[in-house]
Amino acid sequence: MTAIVLVSGGMDSCVTAAMAAAENDVLAMLHLSYGQRTEERERRAFNEIADHYDVAIRLDVSIEYLAEIGGSSLTDPSIDVSEADLDSTKIPTSYVPFRNANMLAIATSWAEAIGATSIYIGAVAEDSSGYPDCRPEFYQAFQKVIDTGTRPESCIEIRTPIIHFSKAEIVRKAVSLNAPLHLTWSCYRSSEQACGTCDSCALRLRGFEQAGIADPIDYAN
Amino acid sequence: MTAIVLVSGGMDSCVTAAMAAAENDVLAMLHLSYGQRTEERERRAFNEIADHYDVAIRLDVSIEYLAEIGGSSLTDPSIDVSEADLDSTKIPTSYVPFRNANMLAIATSWAEAIGATSIYIGAVAEDSSGYPDCRPEFYQAFQKVIDTGTRPESCIEIRTPIIHFSKAEIVRKAVSLNAPLHLTWSCYRSSEQACGTCDSCALRLRGFEQAGIADPIDYAN
Repeated sequence: MTAIVLVSGGMDSCVTAAMAAAENDVLAMLHLSYGQRTEERERRAFNEIADHYDVAIRLDVSIEYLAEIGGSSLTDPSIDVSEADLDSTKIPTSYVPFRNANMLAIATSWAEAIGATSIYIGAVAEDSSGYPDCRPEFYQAFQKVIDTGTRPESCIEIRTPIIHFSKAEIVRKAVSLNAPLHLTWSCYRSSEQACGTCDSCALRLRGFEQAGIADPIDYAN
Repeated sequence: MTAIVLVSGGMDSCVTAAMAAAENDVLAMLHLSYGQRTEERERRAFNEIADHYDVAIRLDVSIEYLAEIGGSSLTDPSIDVSEADLDSTKIPTSYVPFRNANMLAIATSWAEAIGATSIYIGAVAEDSSGYPDCRPEFYQAFQKVIDTGTRPESCIEIRTPIIHFSKAEIVRKAVSLNAPLHLTWSCYRSSEQACGTCDSCALRLRGFEQAGIADPIDYAN
């Protein structure tokens, strides 16, 4: 059985890849870039994680139309990347409208083309800062779209193995599976040295702190 | 209220645009090309239809990754475009895996970014030659994905106004709304003169014949 894993290059997708590797014979890794500030750094992380798991089947797709569509600080240079506010219930400026649906649609097309039977995505509900397309209901709804919108003989299941994990649990799971966290990249702001203060860095650092484990990458702050 | 209309350049999307124009103040037109053989000709039809309806808000997105993913005669030069077999229940070789989900995901991202409240798509269930992502169940399922995966304040509705139409009804509706069918392009095989024998041409010609109306475009056969 072939499983597709969506690998952004961050910590969540890295541990998801480690879980998929433990459960499947063959992995195929999919990376999607959308004109975000740290695109090249994330692609490097993707390739290094794929190398780590000896994955030969890789697809690297640019969905830069999301940058053209705009509306997010990740892709629109005129909007600043906001400082983290982990207690806020507001949707942060880094939200890319309906990004995960675009990613799942591509993954499903690829799954049908190569005969993969599952799609692993490292979505996390609790620590997702309120992105609407990270919630379990969204993935349940998308599963129905796959079931109705693919060939009758296709049987493709979305797997969200860490959706109910806290960042601390993700760190602990990664360590227990020897996932290569030292190869991952999370910062939304910089490609040289992680800033430590954007939403994504703040969530990551809090996870390591709560797990009582040291983050293997360097930070500016 | 702004409505997005997906306009491929074919007859179905043209009549859908005519219906959207009758029901909305402002239209925004979205064209998606995916490396199909007749890409340039379809883009010309899109722009001419948008000109016809005085649409200023246009987005033209290349989703060529669908060509890279392959699996369809529309995008893979090694697979011939099959002759039409309108009575077959098999999914034709022109099926692009999960194409309409990719298109709807992009349309929804754009709708959220520009504040559009509806997305019109000219899907047709009966005459769709068995494409799984043209059926009403697929659109109902995708509506739930939109409802769960967008911002709480976003309210975006998928409209499939011709989904239960026959091709003959589409032709009659187009004529009654003065839709510019002479600007449309349907052929999957040629960009110069429509072949008249591929699935798409055969469906179109049968529709005009059953409606008792002459097709305003020229055919090779």
